[in-house]
Amino acid sequence: MKIGILTSGGDCPGLNAVIRGAVRKGDKTYEDEFIGFLDGWRGVIEDEIMPIPRRKVQGLSRLGGTILGSSRSNPFHDDGDGAALVKRTLEAHDIDAIIAIGGDGTLYTANRLFQAGVPVVGVPKTVDNDLDATDYTFGFNTAVEIATESLDRLRITGESHHRCMVAEVMGRSVGWIALHSGMAAGAHVICIPEFPLSIDEICEYVQATWDRKRAPLVVVAEGFTPKDAPEGLIDYDVDEFGRPRFGGIAQTLAPIIEQRTGIETRATVLGHIQRGGEPTGFDRVLATRFGMAVVDLLHRGGLGRMVALRGTDIVDVPLTEAIDNPKRVPLERWEEAADLFG
Amino acid sequence: MKIGILTSGGDCPGLNAVIRGAVRKGDKTYEDEFIGFLDGWRGVIEDEIMPIPRRKVQGLSRLGGTILGSSRSNPFHDDGDGAALVKRTLEAHDIDAIIAIGGDGTLYTANRLFQAGVPVVGVPKTVDNDLDATDYTFGFNTAVEIATESLDRLRITGESHHRCMVAEVMGRSVGWIALHSGMAAGAHVICIPEFPLSIDEICEYVQATWDRKRAPLVVVAEGFTPKDAPEGLIDYDVDEFGRPRFGGIAQTLAPIIEQRTGIETRATVLGHIQRGGEPTGFDRVLATRFGMAVVDLLHRGGLGRMVALRGTDIVDVPLTEAIDNPKRVPLERWEEAADLFG
Amino acid sequence: MKIGILTSGGDCPGLNAVIRGAVRKGDKTYEDEFIGFLDGWRGVIEDEIMPIPRRKVQGLSRLGGTILGSSRSNPFHDDGDGAALVKRTLEAHDIDAIIAIGGDGTLYTANRLFQAGVPVVGVPKTVDNDLDATDYTFGFNTAVEIATESLDRLRITGESHHRCMVAEVMGRSVGWIALHSGMAAGAHVICIPEFPLSIDEICEYVQATWDRKRAPLVVVAEGFTPKDAPEGLIDYDVDEFGRPRFGGIAQTLAPIIEQRTGIETRATVLGHIQRGGEPTGFDRVLATRFGMAVVDLLHRGGLGRMVALRGTDIVDVPLTEAIDNPKRVPLERWEEAADLFG
Amino acid sequence: MKIGILTSGGDCPGLNAVIRGAVRKGDKTYEDEFIGFLDGWRGVIEDEIMPIPRRKVQGLSRLGGTILGSSRSNPFHDDGDGAALVKRTLEAHDIDAIIAIGGDGTLYTANRLFQAGVPVVGVPKTVDNDLDATDYTFGFNTAVEIATESLDRLRITGESHHRCMVAEVMGRSVGWIALHSGMAAGAHVICIPEFPLSIDEICEYVQATWDRKRAPLVVVAEGFTPKDAPEGLIDYDVDEFGRPRFGGIAQTLAPIIEQRTGIETRATVLGHIQRGGEPTGFDRVLATRFGMAVVDLLHRGGLGRMVALRGTDIVDVPLTEAIDNPKRVPLERWEEAADLFG
Repeated sequence: MKIGILTSGGDCPGLNAVIRGAVRKGDKTYEDEFIGFLDGWRGVIEDEIMPIPRRKVQGLSRLGGTILGSSRSNPFHDDGDGAALVKRTLEAHDIDAIIAIGGDGTLYTANRLFQAGVPVVGVPKTVDNDLDATDYTFGFNTAVEIATESLDRLRITGESHHRCMVAEVMGRSVGWIALHSGMAAGAHVICIPEFPLSIDEICEYVQATWDRKRAPLVVVAEGFTPKDAPEGLIDYDVDEFGRPRFGGIAQTLAPIIEQRTGIETRATVLGHIQRGGEPTGFDRVLATRFGMAVVDLLHRGGLGRMVALRGTDIVDVPLTEAIDNPKRVPLERWEEAADLFG
Repeated sequence: MKIGILTSGGDCPGLNAVIRGAVRKGDKTYEDEFIGFLDGWRGVIEDEIMPIPRRKVQGLSRLGGTILGSSRSNPFHDDGDGAALVKRTLEAHDIDAIIAIGGDGTLYTANRLFQAGVPVVGVPKTVDNDLDATDYTFGFNTAVEIATESLDRLRITGESHHRCMVAEVMGRSVGWIALHSGMAAGAHVICIPEFPLSIDEICEYVQATWDRKRAPLVVVAEGFTPKDAPEGLIDYDVDEFGRPRFGGIAQTLAPIIEQRTGIETRATVLGHIQRGGEPTGFDRVLATRFGMAVVDLLHRGGLGRMVALRGTDIVDVPLTEAIDNPKRVPLERWEEAADLFG
Repeated sequence: MKIGILTSGGDCPGLNAVIRGAVRKGDKTYEDEFIGFLDGWRGVIEDEIMPIPRRKVQGLSRLGGTILGSSRSNPFHDDGDGAALVKRTLEAHDIDAIIAIGGDGTLYTANRLFQAGVPVVGVPKTVDNDLDATDYTFGFNTAVEIATESLDRLRITGESHHRCMVAEVMGRSVGWIALHSGMAAGAHVICIPEFPLSIDEICEYVQATWDRKRAPLVVVAEGFTPKDAPEGLIDYDVDEFGRPRFGGIAQTLAPIIEQRTGIETRATVLGHIQRGGEPTGFDRVLATRFGMAVVDLLHRGGLGRMVALRGTDIVDVPLTEAIDNPKRVPLERWEEAADLFG
Repeated sequence: MKIGILTSGGDCPGLNAVIRGAVRKGDKTYEDEFIGFLDGWRGVIEDEIMPIPRRKVQGLSRLGGTILGSSRSNPFHDDGDGAALVKRTLEAHDIDAIIAIGGDGTLYTANRLFQAGVPVVGVPKTVDNDLDATDYTFGFNTAVEIATESLDRLRITGESHHRCMVAEVMGRSVGWIALHSGMAAGAHVICIPEFPLSIDEICEYVQATWDRKRAPLVVVAEGFTPKDAPEGLIDYDVDEFGRPRFGGIAQTLAPIIEQRTGIETRATVLGHIQRGGEPTGFDRVLATRFGMAVVDLLHRGGLGRMVALRGTDIVDVPLTEAIDNPKRVPLERWEEAADLFG
């Protein structure tokens, strides 16, 4: 087969390992040929491609980023018939099928294309771990390890200064990174979008920790809003220099906690360091296995499906599963974490 | 309840996080009191204990090692009635039950004690990942990450010098660490006990890699023996200074590979650095959850059982499962890895 | 001798290693006895102390933070006669001399006390590396390594997304951390307070990098202000929730760069993770040697002096040197770095 | 100028950063052109070269290894007139001068060539830190950090098991890595070639540590021999499989310590992981500065000289200085370290 491959959406450690896994498996077992589309769907639409011979994937499993580039382009964006655009490019290069590596948006697009007759399979990607179709995907483990290491450092400096430290980690709509890294670092309160605490509750945990003569560590997912947020707290306006008025939820909580508890409080936003860089061994193995398995899936005729992890097995599920079921932190995991607060 | 807790067998990153998880959960939800036995079963037999109030487990999740110490003692070793010894200590301190954290040996002992009427529950521990009863336990992830990082370094130095590098990782009877770290680092051949390659096969992969102008990286589990090992290759004698004649399988393979292929070859034994030190975030979360869950298990009356991971859930299974089913690398995982050799 | 010891000012990796070095050296060579003052000068003023026997410094060299706590207290703050306060505490406990570990503020205070007859010696501490009296102090190396690792990650994620990444590192009045970490990570422009670039110059380097098809990485010291900063750019007001209007120089530059160059640009503020956590081996060795040397200095009668590093030697200099000569990045180091811009 | 560049001898983190520094500086300031010789002097002798345009050094500062390859070739090895060989290659490609990056052997060769009229300058390289001409060179810092991190792990696992851990680090003829990493990790005894302890002395420190209820950590440089070594202790014979009879000094000391003290003792050999992999930020900065400075040196007409670090300055010295003065651990540094033993 001649297989096109693309990486789409936000950066995620392990993308290159997926590409390598697919190319190595296809090359060895099926004598497949691989073509990369540049910058996700943009490369498909604008017909920008590069061949990926085996030699090109040497040493790639440990490399962060993606050699194919990424973007948030989408064949259905501006045009009535995205599928036609895609088919034209496939035909022009005799490409038999596409492997689309991306998050829920990308997989939604992949499914729409599949419905319209485009031969496509998927590999799920989400740093945030918000896809219910798979136990984990690559990237999440790396993000948790980077966040944990940073929280360890903040905790130590908090203790020396007798300060409360508020750390913001990734997670727009789900709190998985906050939950895992916070639990790993022994945070005294974790704020996630799924179960919003009030500012009062946060301050109570902070105070309880302080009363035991410990420096409180508060971990907050970027998408968290306290349930009693006063109006105007979150404000997406920019000033005359284009700067956002709202510097993030950590920057917002810190002065409020300081004011209410009297404890000196500092905010840190971990930001993009969580998603760049070398994948952990865990993510490299998972990504490599995904890449190998998706080529098998293709040769088994599994169009319209994607690979997924269940326990320690790689399985496959319909692309629609990636879209229908966001994975939120369930109540029992939240209660488990909350047992360690304060 | 008054709960005794012990860590037994080889060191494993995450032991302290289990202890902390148990103490925090028991303290908060059930008002349990915790007593630590020093150095595993030795502390039970010789009645050496220390109380573990909440304050003692502060900041413990990231600490490697075990605050309780460990040993390979066993109440059934020298004595006709190990169970009686154990019961005597429990009675002396009004301890209601024991949480035994350890590997297959420890859990076997725990089960024997349980059969003899001792109230005991277990937490599985194995750096090598050789327990079928659980998807993973804490410590394995840390070991794989340390090994992967070291293999990355060896690969780079091999490339600079145009050398073949042979790296020995942990794994006496199973090849899980070799399989995962080798796959993560892009090893050109992985040698595990479950599917022993011959020296000829190893040299073929090494040569094939060399022919592609790459420096071969060979990862070998410490318990590996080539299927065509000449007699005398593995020799546990010591010389007059007490030194083992056999420096390990990597030291053994390196000169043989060099001789047969003509490629300069160097051996490295990662050794104890894989099992000491801070646990990864992954292992801290898993260990903390195990610690919390085993206390719930106890309060649910689950004597004779142990906690385990299935997918992302903590479940519980009979202690006997830990003993009956060693987890070896299955054929499909081996074939998957072998597709990337050469 | 009976020696008091204190850590004052901002947290800095290596403080505990200094304490350990001093206690081990004093204990072994001179049979000194050590008393720690809690939270810097506050412990001296308020007479809060703890004895530091040898057993208390075991394993301390790798521990971040300070077991003594720190604060920004100052005996001269509220009171006419700080020296009298200090002397009273020394007399109350028969303490012969104080080892003050701190930055320029602390050493200035130490010198004032010395002038007023208090027996004091100093150990210089500055994460920012702004003391001319010493080649380096502990903490700076750790901060540079953490920043470098983070910049590596940002660079990779920038490349995947074809984005400009702006990273803010520590350095209020000097650019040493920016200079070193930026050079280590291959930044395309480095902005430091000593040689302020204009916004136009920054954008030119960003554009030149972009034109070579690379994702620009801009490293900026927190104290940097562009030489053509428009009025109102830096604004220390807070809004009704107590949040600063000015989110830092990286948050400020990013939208301006994006607007002028048309290149998507993201800001990251490394913040407190640079100063907490375990010291590097380099900083542990330096801090340990400083701790040992300052005890020798005391026994040689070097009151009013502090230890310093010159090449690979530990020397001593008057406390006044720490105060008189801030160390800024000199022109030749700036030009050297700037040769790699664009 | 048209400048040839080569890397020779053992791998060392920072080699690529030197190459990048030289190419970037030469390209920008002098419009130099760079040619790389493959595998050190071998490429010069056998005329194997590759051009190094600026584009080829992008992102190179963080990359371990050397893109030019290395070997232990030497133009004077087999041939009466090495200099003639070298000159022939230079003339064939109109190369004006050679930058030789290497250790004492390489620099000795460089100096011999310089005496014979070959235009050459040097950059000192030694992981072991055994060149007196420079305070440090790149690679040493990385090796110390890797060793320190490994020693931290060994120390923790030793404490859990109540074992003595013996760790062997690099250092054939000097003990710098052992001294620095051992001091950083709080080793209880450090064994270096410069000041050989006896086995009895080592055991006394081990016993003293044990008596304080700590697990002894012994750090030993690979080139260490105890001053009372019994005959036959170090034996370079190989057995019938080509394996060395002598597994290294750590493997040798461990059973002897165990036998004499009765304390369970384990050996670990860190080996090649110390010299491969990514350079630290410190080494990247130093290597980059060396690369830039050596190009300046060349344009200043400094043939027969090499760059060196003095304090924080890059200076230059005659190549002969690299050869005449090995840098051993001096008595005062040894005594300083020994104050912390036991």
